[in-house]
Amino acid sequence: MKKAVVLLSGGLDSSTAAYIAKFDKCQVFPISFLYGQRHTYELICAERIAKSLGVEIKKVTVGLKGLAESSLTGSSEIPVEGVQKDKIPSTWVPQRNSIFLALAFAYAESVDADFIYAGMNAIDYSGYPDCRPEFLQAIEKALNLASARFVEKGKGFGIATPLVKMTKADIIKRGMSLGVPYELTWSCYQGPNELKQACGVCDSCRLRLKGFAEAGLTDPLKYVEVQND
Amino acid sequence: MKKAVVLLSGGLDSSTAAYIAKFDKCQVFPISFLYGQRHTYELICAERIAKSLGVEIKKVTVGLKGLAESSLTGSSEIPVEGVQKDKIPSTWVPQRNSIFLALAFAYAESVDADFIYAGMNAIDYSGYPDCRPEFLQAIEKALNLASARFVEKGKGFGIATPLVKMTKADIIKRGMSLGVPYELTWSCYQGPNELKQACGVCDSCRLRLKGFAEAGLTDPLKYVEVQND
Repeated sequence: MKKAVVLLSGGLDSSTAAYIAKFDKCQVFPISFLYGQRHTYELICAERIAKSLGVEIKKVTVGLKGLAESSLTGSSEIPVEGVQKDKIPSTWVPQRNSIFLALAFAYAESVDADFIYAGMNAIDYSGYPDCRPEFLQAIEKALNLASARFVEKGKGFGIATPLVKMTKADIIKRGMSLGVPYELTWSCYQGPNELKQACGVCDSCRLRLKGFAEAGLTDPLKYVEVQND
Repeated sequence: MKKAVVLLSGGLDSSTAAYIAKFDKCQVFPISFLYGQRHTYELICAERIAKSLGVEIKKVTVGLKGLAESSLTGSSEIPVEGVQKDKIPSTWVPQRNSIFLALAFAYAESVDADFIYAGMNAIDYSGYPDCRPEFLQAIEKALNLASARFVEKGKGFGIATPLVKMTKADIIKRGMSLGVPYELTWSCYQGPNELKQACGVCDSCRLRLKGFAEAGLTDPLKYVEVQND
């Protein structure tokens, strides 16, 4: 049986990626990151998804708050005007995916995994530069050059991004077919309010809601400002 | 004036790299990492070196302990038999340099630095795969693809490794000429004993002592088992 470390944030994409890794007959090793994000609630969701898969989650702390400007780890407002074409939004956390992938490669070395599954998407996404295929290819090469397995055995780790060219609607349909419990996931950058509702207007909520609408399905989460049922 | 983020561990190489960045007329932004290493004393040294340069140090915490096997972050013995050819030693922390460089690129984005200076060395070194020039070139490319500055302005960050092809003796001679206060640095993997002595037999001590000896200079640090004066 192959082994896969899975970057699991507890969001829609990474949870689907974890279920795809299982579908691909991999033993799944989820890893989650406490990095100073506002929506730490997603980590509870990551644990729930891991539990739904019957596996333990590896939790890593990394202090990104205050290292570089981001509304996701800072105090500035989360934008609500929707994704702007050709503009990197303030929610972007510089080098977040590089850091997470490097940490995942370190973990892969210890569990002798074959793959790192990650839910990056370059279609219905927020314009983050570290979700693009050319970055993913380059970082896979670089991290393998720094890995003992590649240097000693000539056999590197592969980054698998099964969602990278899928629309959000297709991701949701695929996830539904695999039984991903989307009611256990969380996407909203704001975290839940006291009624456990998502804001409905941040980029992450908008992309999620658009995906469910286009898939002709109902999002099991509750929202404040957008009625999705 | 150019700006340089400098990976500053408080050791001999990174302290020399910081002084070279200053010599290269860069405004220096040191960054240090609490990652679960045994020898946290090096972080005090990193602060001292930053202070000697008259600059503030950025401190980042990242939980590498328990993520992957390493005698530097775990409980297994630090080897004392010297560097073994073509073998990655147990002190290697998988992906450490990838993670540190990715964090440095994030910080560089926030201070708008031009360079990331780092003290990697591929001559008198421990055989760590993430010190080799081919890794450094690949990670520079990958991290730039994930950076806003490169994506938006077409101008990436450069990784400067001025020590990469120097012998340890040459590094020390260069550092001496620049006034690096080596008495404020720390290299020993064990951390200081109660007499503030370094062990003298770990790979890091051995390389340092060999460097001072070949340079015909005296290491200002005190050692337990090896007399260097």
